[in-house]
Amino acid sequence: MVTIDVNSDLGETTAGNPVSDDAAIIELVSSANVACGFHAGDPHEIAKTVEAAARRGVSVGAHPGYRDISGFGRRFIDYAPDELADEVLYQIGALDALARAKGTRVSYVKPHGALYNAIVHHEEQARAVIDGIKAFSGDLPVLLPPGAVAIEIAERAGLRTVREAFADRQYTPDGTLVSRREPDAVVSDPDVVAQRVVRIAESGTLIARDGSEIRIRAESLCIHGDSPGSVELAGRIVAALREAGIEIRSFA
Amino acid sequence: MVTIDVNSDLGETTAGNPVSDDAAIIELVSSANVACGFHAGDPHEIAKTVEAAARRGVSVGAHPGYRDISGFGRRFIDYAPDELADEVLYQIGALDALARAKGTRVSYVKPHGALYNAIVHHEEQARAVIDGIKAFSGDLPVLLPPGAVAIEIAERAGLRTVREAFADRQYTPDGTLVSRREPDAVVSDPDVVAQRVVRIAESGTLIARDGSEIRIRAESLCIHGDSPGSVELAGRIVAALREAGIEIRSFA
Amino acid sequence: MVTIDVNSDLGETTAGNPVSDDAAIIELVSSANVACGFHAGDPHEIAKTVEAAARRGVSVGAHPGYRDISGFGRRFIDYAPDELADEVLYQIGALDALARAKGTRVSYVKPHGALYNAIVHHEEQARAVIDGIKAFSGDLPVLLPPGAVAIEIAERAGLRTVREAFADRQYTPDGTLVSRREPDAVVSDPDVVAQRVVRIAESGTLIARDGSEIRIRAESLCIHGDSPGSVELAGRIVAALREAGIEIRSFA
Amino acid sequence: MVTIDVNSDLGETTAGNPVSDDAAIIELVSSANVACGFHAGDPHEIAKTVEAAARRGVSVGAHPGYRDISGFGRRFIDYAPDELADEVLYQIGALDALARAKGTRVSYVKPHGALYNAIVHHEEQARAVIDGIKAFSGDLPVLLPPGAVAIEIAERAGLRTVREAFADRQYTPDGTLVSRREPDAVVSDPDVVAQRVVRIAESGTLIARDGSEIRIRAESLCIHGDSPGSVELAGRIVAALREAGIEIRSFA
Repeated sequence: MVTIDVNSDLGETTAGNPVSDDAAIIELVSSANVACGFHAGDPHEIAKTVEAAARRGVSVGAHPGYRDISGFGRRFIDYAPDELADEVLYQIGALDALARAKGTRVSYVKPHGALYNAIVHHEEQARAVIDGIKAFSGDLPVLLPPGAVAIEIAERAGLRTVREAFADRQYTPDGTLVSRREPDAVVSDPDVVAQRVVRIAESGTLIARDGSEIRIRAESLCIHGDSPGSVELAGRIVAALREAGIEIRSFA
Repeated sequence: MVTIDVNSDLGETTAGNPVSDDAAIIELVSSANVACGFHAGDPHEIAKTVEAAARRGVSVGAHPGYRDISGFGRRFIDYAPDELADEVLYQIGALDALARAKGTRVSYVKPHGALYNAIVHHEEQARAVIDGIKAFSGDLPVLLPPGAVAIEIAERAGLRTVREAFADRQYTPDGTLVSRREPDAVVSDPDVVAQRVVRIAESGTLIARDGSEIRIRAESLCIHGDSPGSVELAGRIVAALREAGIEIRSFA
Repeated sequence: MVTIDVNSDLGETTAGNPVSDDAAIIELVSSANVACGFHAGDPHEIAKTVEAAARRGVSVGAHPGYRDISGFGRRFIDYAPDELADEVLYQIGALDALARAKGTRVSYVKPHGALYNAIVHHEEQARAVIDGIKAFSGDLPVLLPPGAVAIEIAERAGLRTVREAFADRQYTPDGTLVSRREPDAVVSDPDVVAQRVVRIAESGTLIARDGSEIRIRAESLCIHGDSPGSVELAGRIVAALREAGIEIRSFA
Repeated sequence: MVTIDVNSDLGETTAGNPVSDDAAIIELVSSANVACGFHAGDPHEIAKTVEAAARRGVSVGAHPGYRDISGFGRRFIDYAPDELADEVLYQIGALDALARAKGTRVSYVKPHGALYNAIVHHEEQARAVIDGIKAFSGDLPVLLPPGAVAIEIAERAGLRTVREAFADRQYTPDGTLVSRREPDAVVSDPDVVAQRVVRIAESGTLIARDGSEIRIRAESLCIHGDSPGSVELAGRIVAALREAGIEIRSFA
């Protein structure tokens, strides 16, 4: 049977103000990337999120970010590597304690926002993030985009890597995401998105922006719940996978 | 052989600016109350502190505080209990991850500053702190002042409690600290402080402010390294204990 | 002609995540209580808010709070008075600079959340807040609930005070708000709320929780845009005032 | 009579923990770069600093930094320009309010740390900083190192620029600072430093690292009080200037 993981960012409520419809999204995913308090997420909100994940059998992933509440972790920060490694370790440990108190645990790591983007190409920060993860455990898979420099570093460090695809984003022929600054960055037709996810799951291929078929090795699909219509689109993606007989199952 | 623990606050360096002479103090104590990042302490500085503690065989205690970097955790904050419990749990988990990466672990908890003061009498917050500790582990002793309402709550919850005394502070005849607002709050003569610590360790007694002898059941002595002369006084205290043949040993 | 001011909290977007529907609310009010960055609000979001206020001729009020992003300023913090005074002054100055850059200025002050609640009864903090405001200018009116201890202190300090009423909140016979912990704290029927606002504006009276008519001296009505249905209710309130021929006009 | 300004960073006390010996440094300078709370400095500490500056007739400069208490503003952050401009404006406004309450005002701006370094070459951030300053006032001089791209941008925007030199730092033959990563970055012999400052003030020249004489157009000298021996060196610099009959006078 064909299976794929579906992941989404959760637990990012700060100061009591929700960022996404967590209650709806938790029903759709197999993996929850849970905020760790540095870019978003208060301990008590995080606790509620991991409790919901535990109840639904959803895997809990640490979603560490730069220390930047006011920028939601979306600005690159030029950390010294040893500082960054310890900031990542701190966040994973904090989340794991909350998770264990609710009967689950951190079972993978997906860096957030500008940190996620940085470690696609920034070797020093990529190494720091992998160091931080490894300092916590040698058994945590790392969720990353195909082609990230952090993938190679993680694998050399003995960590399992899991690649993810974005169903609603356009790809270049070489398998990287079309930048959000370009007009065709997003695939907005829900029917097309639904076809794409099934294709990724079944055949590991995708139609790139230029019409060519490319291989996209992805064990996980990332969905969003933080913009108008995103929950509906996420529901559509999950429904399409189920209709095609694809099982949604955590990689962890 | 008579033994007593000596504890001090460490790892409170924020933004690269040290608050106390950690290198000197770590040589004197058996227990290090390590900042967890909420009132002070960056993950990388904390990591260096727990590494030094591990190297010296000093017990690492979590020193959680209110989320208040700008106030150094010295202002009471009226948290909802379930939020406070998760903030304490988050801090212990974060510190424990840093400690384990250096080959040690959190082996007790001593709340910091205004939180420490609050749970002497504030039942709701005391219960929240104990809940947060217990959610991490049922095996962590809690370091508190004699008479704190949190002691009773901790013991009912099945946690071991450890009482501490302050060698350089004056006590009332009923065994509580004289408020810092009063002129005779501090015992400043190093010779008198040295006599007091030996007396506490050997006989569990103390001469109170009014000259009467009181019982002070304390398994730990708190020393400080954050004010001029404090490291010298701490060194004097430790020397006095050693000269009296008292072994300085962690309770954990 | 009868006039009344209508005020609401605005500019509380943090990390790009809006808390209320600012675009809708700014169309309804004569006074905008603009967040100053301590409980919520990034400088750039604040700048957009004061720009919108300037464009619409809405008065800009400083809405200083405790330094508590993660708690949205809703937790009491036990500040030293001189620290609190300077934190208030800092916030007003920061907001005023942003306002002047957009062609307007801070023309009144309404403390936020737990700080607003504290200075109803906490004399020391009330004095600190008034000191902070006066250090900025002796010409800024302060918006407060009737009966607050801060009113007396402000008036003794030579500051103008403006009292506000909450159209959708139930009052006790002695003119104070029924606590939110009680089941009848909120008046939820929009028709009743609409009648109440007109009555407050026209006759300065209100039907209290026990059915008695009480005097409520209020020059301003507070409306909200941060919960489901609140914008609709706010629109209803404003429409009711207009239908009754009452002019909505800033007190500043 | 030859004159030169002497500036130093002040008011960076956070959480009650001083970073430098402000009381000693304020006696030596003509210009105080006062922290604005984003990289360091609490409002009440800032207030005490501007009060001391006012009392001594020392000019108050705004010293805005990135929002990064835990990194002391020493890490580059990739801000969007319009966000950065408003963060700078916010900080200047906040400081100015505190300054005016003590009878002085912000009379120049010197960016801090990583922000200062960034705008030497980062055009977009340089423009943002200048936009933020100009939004506050068109009359504030900006203190910068010679050769910074921000100088050109400031001058085109109609702002006065003031160049500063570092007496204890080595220069390359082209007039830029030798990087701190190189072993000869710092001039440590106090006698040599004393000769250098007098030469800069009197003849606008300096002996570069390769022994050649270079021109260094500097109206201000930067001194430090945050490391062991720095206050003594600062005192030596000031004494050397006075002995040479050079008047220390603010450029503002």
